[in-house]
Order: sequence, then structure tokens, then C-alpha cells
Amino acid sequence: MLSVSDAIAAVLNATSPLVPESLPLAETLGLVLAEDIHSNTDLPPFDKSLVDGFAIRLSSFQSELPVLEIVSAGQVPTRQLDQLACIQIMTGAQLPIGADAVVPIEHTSQRSDANGKMVVTFSSNVATWRSGTNIIRRGAALKCGELVVISGSELRPQELGALAELGHANVLTRRRPRVAALATGDELVPIDQTPGPGQIRNSNELMLCAQIRRAGADPIPLGIARDERVHLRERIEAGLQADVLVLSGGVSMGEKDLVPSELAAAGVRQVFHKVNVKPGKPAWFGVLDKSPTANSQVSRTLVFGLPGNPVSSMVCFELFVRPALRHLMGYAAAEPTPIKARLTQAHTTKGDRPTYHPAHIEWHPNGPTVTAVPWVGSSDLRATVAANSMALFPAGDQTYETSSIVDVIAW
Amino acid sequence: MLSVSDAIAAVLNATSPLVPESLPLAETLGLVLAEDIHSNTDLPPFDKSLVDGFAIRLSSFQSELPVLEIVSAGQVPTRQLDQLACIQIMTGAQLPIGADAVVPIEHTSQRSDANGKMVVTFSSNVATWRSGTNIIRRGAALKCGELVVISGSELRPQELGALAELGHANVLTRRRPRVAALATGDELVPIDQTPGPGQIRNSNELMLCAQIRRAGADPIPLGIARDERVHLRERIEAGLQADVLVLSGGVSMGEKDLVPSELAAAGVRQVFHKVNVKPGKPAWFGVLDKSPTANSQVSRTLVFGLPGNPVSSMVCFELFVRPALRHLMGYAAAEPTPIKARLTQAHTTKGDRPTYHPAHIEWHPNGPTVTAVPWVGSSDLRATVAANSMALFPAGDQTYETSSIVDVIAW
Repeated sequence: MLSVSDAIAAVLNATSPLVPESLPLAETLGLVLAEDIHSNTDLPPFDKSLVDGFAIRLSSFQSELPVLEIVSAGQVPTRQLDQLACIQIMTGAQLPIGADAVVPIEHTSQRSDANGKMVVTFSSNVATWRSGTNIIRRGAALKCGELVVISGSELRPQELGALAELGHANVLTRRRPRVAALATGDELVPIDQTPGPGQIRNSNELMLCAQIRRAGADPIPLGIARDERVHLRERIEAGLQADVLVLSGGVSMGEKDLVPSELAAAGVRQVFHKVNVKPGKPAWFGVLDKSPTANSQVSRTLVFGLPGNPVSSMVCFELFVRPALRHLMGYAAAEPTPIKARLTQAHTTKGDRPTYHPAHIEWHPNGPTVTAVPWVGSSDLRATVAANSMALFPAGDQTYETSSIVDVIAW
Repeated sequence: MLSVSDAIAAVLNATSPLVPESLPLAETLGLVLAEDIHSNTDLPPFDKSLVDGFAIRLSSFQSELPVLEIVSAGQVPTRQLDQLACIQIMTGAQLPIGADAVVPIEHTSQRSDANGKMVVTFSSNVATWRSGTNIIRRGAALKCGELVVISGSELRPQELGALAELGHANVLTRRRPRVAALATGDELVPIDQTPGPGQIRNSNELMLCAQIRRAGADPIPLGIARDERVHLRERIEAGLQADVLVLSGGVSMGEKDLVPSELAAAGVRQVFHKVNVKPGKPAWFGVLDKSPTANSQVSRTLVFGLPGNPVSSMVCFELFVRPALRHLMGYAAAEPTPIKARLTQAHTTKGDRPTYHPAHIEWHPNGPTVTAVPWVGSSDLRATVAANSMALFPAGDQTYETSSIVDVIAW
């Protein structure tokens, strides 16, 4: 049976990043930049005051100086400091020519002279100041031509700020993948209905849509497909319009597990079925290659058939679907990243498959610790509510002692 | 001057969680539950097969048995195992009365007998199996009345799944705060325009809106307010309709720093102005108490005047605004949580204020490390692009040696 790492590799191998598009910067939070952005200007674009105060020339400083003019932010000085004088200046305003320091207003007092002109008295020991005090020079933060944000970077608030500063109202990035979620099974009823005998509510659709959103993609909820070929096929066809179709249920060995055969009938080529993992053994993955149309550049839909038990669905999403979504979005590191953590208590595993056990990771100055939470199996969602991660225990019957190091994948 | 911790305490003290509302579960991802949810049912609601196979009664097991009926998921068994027979059953289906184990279909072979009835031969050593093999009993995952999700929990995909399973199509939670963002300053031009002499682009609005969204709130961008009383007042009045108004710029000591006086004129009561922090000293915070109207339960708008330099704005948002938003949303832990991390290289600080320095934190099995990134000051957004956190260096001139432990706040 396929290993988890081989299954992830097969998913990534079948997945290509979406075609970059120019999008309004304001809509790109959490997306990945698809171009290198170099600065097209010096930043700051001019010598600038860092404080509200008085611009002076240190070489001609006196403890009392007349004020030539006032420069607010957004204004341009009309005078220069070529005489015994100072210029009042506001934070962020452009420094006058000849000035080489700014004295904060708190270190001064002001009065009017006989002609009604403002005169400033400096209370600080300004004469000993170094050139450049309270000034940021043109280009000190960034020089024209320097690399600001590299292609492949996630666009966080600070990248948006830096790109806005440089006037990139649009940037080349990859849009959020559209991901259809379809729950299958005659036992399912909508969450606002009361299940009859033998029935349960469709909790997977809502959970998977939340996972899709958390991964940075746009979910398209498709409701419940009955275990009936015509109906299932119609819902599958709808889902195949998306970049990714995630189904839950219908991939086991049962008589009504119609998902693999109906996907095949819809032209989806199976890449794998069954992975050596607990929970999630029946996981199915395939691809549909489509001819590009005038309206769409999408040429391939990725299709995941996840097992129907909720913890299986959730774990398989994190292991297989999320990496695919990150790869579509252009993230360099698409795979789940295991963290090494110390067990807070001994843990005994049994079984012939590697187990991803709901766990609680905590961050400490001397390294993370992890606790496996009580868990009765793949239908036990409450265990995942107590968890914030999954700990990997390899196949085989074994007891892991307290302080053993295990791999953990944070959710 | 107010310390950062006193300023955060003042913000939280002036902030009350929003009034809980019943919201559709599908819209609550990332919100905080405002009620305890107990299970209203046993989960699973019936004894259930974990595999596709044949339900048997171990006490009357034989290596070959006739099949009484087939039970799919969603169906209810009509027969019970009170004779030498088995019942075919699908994953997730309800177990027939009398059955105490399910043999996976892979461990069987099937044939038709002389009457055309199905007979199963079991290849495994089933007789030695324990009762309950491949079965999950009613209530094993959750018993009726048990606490499932506690009030104050963040609603993640797994909580949504667990609540959906129990039929909570609506839950009591607190909506996303609406947060208006207003950049002020005559030096600002929109990001798609070319700044003239002395001007810069309005990068803060977009960055703050992204920070607001990352904090789980809904941003309302209000554009640029000029340093002119009538115009500024009109924009402030618009912003005061929101739960929170975040301004940037106009809070320093300059002649055109009209924000505090115009906020006062609009009825906003100042709580603090100036915090002992670098960057961000001019930070301003106040509140406006409003009479509730028929359309709104909001009775208080929180108002933050952040310094205009982009790194000051960003840092002050994380220190002061984000905790307020989390408190509004009902998070128990609203304050920034410092992480202890080891410096990867020596770092020298100067100055009379505690400094939050853009930094890069890395997670290692033996604990996090942190590197202060090169940073020329509060207008240097590129430093934040290289960073994923801020490291706190207390006031005073000091060199911190490699491996010193410092507090770090992750972004």
C-alpha cells in the first residue's frame, strides 16, 4: 500500500501552480507573489524629519534662532538654511536644503521678536549633536532598484504595505483555488434536520469547507449526493467545474461505494486508491484533464475521495488536499511540516498502519511538548476539538515513553 | 509615560466583548463560541460497523455462513443474528441486533448456494476474535449530556464539524467587529498615484485593513483624510459608526496634528496619549460612548490614533488594537503572548524606550531562536518583510550576547 509520503508526492506531482494573474493588491492577502518586486524609487523619497521640531544647520547653530518658514508633511520647503536661522518642520516633512539635524519641539521654546517673527530658544545641548539626528536620509530604508519582495513570498500585511508604498496597485499573483466539497451517502441528512434510524448529519461538508477556507482557498459547498449513480454523477459533474473537487464517503469496499466508478465514468483518471495510514486508508486521488475554454485557463481538476468518517476526512484533508491547494497557490513549501516534540506522557500504539493521532502541542522555551488526546477512532470528532495537531506514531505495537520525540503536524 | 503593559491594560479595561448573537454555523469560522454546547445525543447514535464486511455473532460463528440480508449505511437492519447466519454490512451502517463483530470483506469469499442464496466463507481466524472487533458502540465517542465545546472556544474546522454533527445549525457567538481605517495627512496620495514633491503613498490603509482582517475582524477602508478640520471631522464621524476606528498619522506634536483635538470635538474621550515604546510613542487611545439605537446594540466605539510611520502603525496595531479586537470577539487570551527565544547573534540596543525590533523567529526541537533583522527605523517597512515577529529589547544602552533569551511576539 502507498505510504503517506509517496501519496503526498503523487499529489504534488499531479499538481501545477495556477497561472499567475494581475490582481488588485487589496485582494491579495494570504496569496503568493508571482514576480520579484524591485524598488522603483528611493525610500524615503526625500530627506525627512522624524520628529516635530526645528530643522537646523549644526555648523551655524546658535542657542537662539529666527524661524524662516514652517514646513508641514506634504509641503516642500521654499527656503534653505544658508544663514543663521532655523525652519519649523513636522514629522514626515521634507528637510530643507542645508539642514542636518532636527531639534524636537519639546526641547525648545518659542517667542515673537519685535517684528512679530518667531524666534526659537533651544534648551538642549544641541551643539554637541551629531549630523543626521532625527533625520532619515533619502534612500536610507530602500534604494531604487533594490529587491523588496521576492517571487514566492506570502503576501502578509507588511508585504501589502511595502508594495502599496511603491505604487503597486496590482500585483502578479495566483488566485485562490476554487474547491468544491461534496458529501456522499444515503445515511446523511442536512445539519438542520433530525436524523432518522440509521442516519447521521452531514458534518463533513461544513468542516471541509472550513478547512478549505483556512488553507486560503474558496470553498464551494455542493451538499449531499445520494448513493445513486445518476444523482451522484450529476453532482460530480458540477464539482468538476472547480479547480479541486473534494468528496467524502463512498470510497470504501462497500456495495454502494460508487465514487471511484462514477469518477472514472466522468473521465477522472485514478492516481491512487488506498494509503497506508490510520485514519484514512481508503483515500482516493485522481485528475481530470480538460481542454481549456475561452472562459477558463483551468486545464486540470484535482479530485480527492476522502473517507466518510469525520476524523478520517479531516486528517486526509490536511495530509493530501492542503498540500495540493498550497501548491496551486504557489507556495514553495507545500507539504505538511512535521515538528519534533517531546511526549508529556507515555503512549501505546497498536496496529499495522502509521497512525496520525489527535494531539495537543504546547510551545515552551526549551522546545515543544505534545500530548496524545484520548481518541476512540475515526468517528470521534470530540478528540479533535481537544487537539491542535496530530502526532505520528509509526506502524507496529509499541509504547513510547514520556519524553520520546515524535513528529507532530500542527493544524 | 505609560508603559506598554499599562497601555494594553487600559485598552482591555475600556473594552467589553460584543453582545452574543445567534449566527449560522457556516459563518462562524474563527469566531468564539459564547455558550457551552452539550451533546443532545449519543455518538455514534447506534452501534456501527467500521468496515465493509459481514456482521457475525461470535458465539455461533462457523467458517461458512449464509447471508440473511444486506445493510447499507442509512438503512436499518430488518433481521437479527439469532441463528447460524451473518448479515452483510457497509461502513457506517447500523449493526444488527445479536451481532458482536464484523469481518472485513477482504477476509471472506462469497458464493451462491443451490437456492441462489449468498454464502460466505471466512478466511481469517475469526473464531479467536474479541467481541466488538470492527464495531463502534453507540455513545462510544460521545454520550448524551457530555460537554462538547466549551464557551470561549475558537470555532475551528473541527468545532464546526462537531457542532454540525449535533445539529447546531446556528450557534451563539460574537460577530466580527467592524473596524474603520482612516489614514490622515496632506502628504498622502492614493497608492495608484505618483507622489509629488514632499508626498508619499498611503500604504497604511491597505496594511491596517490586512491586519484587521488577519485579526478576524471586518475592515472598512475610509481612505485619506486631509489635515483640515472640516474634512477630517467628517471622516472621523463616518468612522465612529464602526465598532472600532483606527486612524494613522496626526497624533504627534506638529501644528497640523489635528487628530486628538478633532476626536475630542466629536465626543471621544481620551484614555491615553503617548506610550513609552519605540516605535509608536505618540500612540493615542480613546472611547466614544453612544446611546444604543433601534438598529444597533453598539454602545461604545474604540478609537486608536496610531503614528503615521508605517512600522509604528503596524507595531501599535499588534500591541494595542489586536488585543482590543480579540477582547471584542470574546477570546479569553486577548493580550499579545510573548515567546521566550534565544538570540542567534549578539544585538546592541540604544535609547530610552523599550524597543520592539522586527525579528525572525524560527522553531526548533530544543526551543525557538530569534534574529533581529536589519532595521533603520519606523519608516523601514522592508525590515518587516524580512521579519515574522518583533523582539522586545528593554530601555537602555545594552548589548545582548548570542543565546540571550528575549521576549518575542509573533506576527
